[in-house]
Amino acid sequence: MARWEPNARERLERSALTLFTEHGFDATTVAEIADRAGLTKSTFFRHFADKREVLFGGQDMLVQLFSDAIRTAPPSATTAECLAAALEAAAVAFTPERHDLAPQRRAVIAANSELQERELLKRARLASAMADALRARGADEATARLAAEVGVLAFGTGYARWAAPENRLPFTEIARAALHELQASASTLGVPES
Amino acid sequence: MARWEPNARERLERSALTLFTEHGFDATTVAEIADRAGLTKSTFFRHFADKREVLFGGQDMLVQLFSDAIRTAPPSATTAECLAAALEAAAVAFTPERHDLAPQRRAVIAANSELQERELLKRARLASAMADALRARGADEATARLAAEVGVLAFGTGYARWAAPENRLPFTEIARAALHELQASASTLGVPES
Repeated sequence: MARWEPNARERLERSALTLFTEHGFDATTVAEIADRAGLTKSTFFRHFADKREVLFGGQDMLVQLFSDAIRTAPPSATTAECLAAALEAAAVAFTPERHDLAPQRRAVIAANSELQERELLKRARLASAMADALRARGADEATARLAAEVGVLAFGTGYARWAAPENRLPFTEIARAALHELQASASTLGVPES
Repeated sequence: MARWEPNARERLERSALTLFTEHGFDATTVAEIADRAGLTKSTFFRHFADKREVLFGGQDMLVQLFSDAIRTAPPSATTAECLAAALEAAAVAFTPERHDLAPQRRAVIAANSELQERELLKRARLASAMADALRARGADEATARLAAEVGVLAFGTGYARWAAPENRLPFTEIARAALHELQASASTLGVPES
């Protein structure tokens, strides 16, 4: 019997992260996660396909946010401006309220090689989605691929800095700074060999 | 009883690729691969840990070649010159004799989502090794990461073009052209926003 549970998704997420941290990802069951959140297994499965999705469920949303931001950027926007728009759009996922979950999530992933692989694949998918969106705007192949990698690097660096326990700055500001650092490196790299 | 078999590794590789192409990767067994090559299963396991290694066994060698080339480039070499040296070093793995295996390998990987993930992870490891080698030369974090991605993109594009059945150009020449295209894109991306 489906019943509406206030904040069920977030309660499940917090329980899961606590249990993953205490007992490891592999040793934690869905039943234990639901139980700790005071919810049922079927409520868990209404929100997540499996326990891995607690950690990576945001991927589809990020793909969508990145793609939409790049596709809807003004026609006059440069490639770098498209990347900045994508990072700005992603900020809805990284609010101050969710800041305390981030270091836990990162620690759980760092402790498990399979989850690390999943994280790398997630980044590859984000890059691929950004490259598609840039191609759709008419970027040539080399630029679409390179810019997508720059976007994902700025995102990854931005996320890591934002997730640091002591950080108090908003995601957009941090990610934009990371993008500027990468742009500075890109201009150095772009200098042709003598 | 270990016995020396001439060209055993290459014979196993060719048998495996033929069987993967005919029956699919998942349906092919090590026994069938060895049998088709006229060798024993134990000979197979002296060359490969499992059938997946037939496709990805070159990864460790590439990591080594890339890292060594970057570490031993002259101190005056620019970051882009280090990448060019890495790509040049990789060319030993992509000789004309091995050219006919490449389209088969690519088709086998393209037909299997798990193998595609493995290929993405391989690229992530190559990037990580290149970034480490660049950091060891004193590159700053943003430049090391960005340049490593550029190196892997040039490698990937170069490999795909080299592996095209109709291609007759050597890997080094193709990869260097791909690197130059990416450098041109990098200088555009590096232009600060107005």
